[in-house]
Amino acid sequence: MKKALVAALVAATAILSTPAMAQFQKPEDAIKYRKASFTVMAAHFGRIGAMANNRVPFDAKVAADNAAIVETMSKLPWAAFGAGTDKGDTRALPAIWTEQAKFKEGADKMQAEVGKLAAAAKTGNLDAIKTAFGAAGQSCKACHDDFRKD
Amino acid sequence: MKKALVAALVAATAILSTPAMAQFQKPEDAIKYRKASFTVMAAHFGRIGAMANNRVPFDAKVAADNAAIVETMSKLPWAAFGAGTDKGDTRALPAIWTEQAKFKEGADKMQAEVGKLAAAAKTGNLDAIKTAFGAAGQSCKACHDDFRKD
Repeated sequence: MKKALVAALVAATAILSTPAMAQFQKPEDAIKYRKASFTVMAAHFGRIGAMANNRVPFDAKVAADNAAIVETMSKLPWAAFGAGTDKGDTRALPAIWTEQAKFKEGADKMQAEVGKLAAAAKTGNLDAIKTAFGAAGQSCKACHDDFRKD
Repeated sequence: MKKALVAALVAATAILSTPAMAQFQKPEDAIKYRKASFTVMAAHFGRIGAMANNRVPFDAKVAADNAAIVETMSKLPWAAFGAGTDKGDTRALPAIWTEQAKFKEGADKMQAEVGKLAAAAKTGNLDAIKTAFGAAGQSCKACHDDFRKD
């Protein structure tokens, strides 16, 4: 029992003392930050989409530059879903906190797909970019369906 | 006269067809995006500041990671200050558009100082980071003083 208690305390301390939790002074700062990072990510993701969907001419450098930004941004929002950030100016659903493992799985999946998109964009092959863009978009949508208000 | 007209048309076409202008469908999209990029940048800049000001223990990797994000973000907002984005949910002052050369100079200065901060952070030398952080902060403030409503 004592061992389990110590383990639980260590785990709790680790969670509370991670930089992620210390990064925001107020819950509303975390909410503003995570929304901002999604906004920037979506803008650059959309620019790749415009090329993937043949709405604008394909430019390999533009695709690669935007994909690199998307990859950077894809890592940022998750630290801002800490305790107490479920209320306020947010469309986050309670499931984020009641189904944390599933939420993390979705977040990891998105980052993996975006990593593949960035790799595809570096090759300059539009077909590869289209495939990776579609998979990355699906990973966005999956989380939005489960964890975000309409 | 004809030559001047052609030159003017070429210049106008170049402005209208730059990716920067094509990136946003509506002025409010551009405003939301540039504010979001500043929000993300400020959050990560603040984390370096917490170390530079001895509010949190110095961690060279955390400093370098945050500085790299700040550097990426420092390049983003400028494309979103296009024509028609001076009105709406923004604190941008008209001077941004009436004194474009000065605004660009300030934006370039900030990016240069942030580049130095990222380079300093890579060295892991806290004193170098403190110096570069101060200069970068000054470059933020200079633009805010001149181009942003209080």
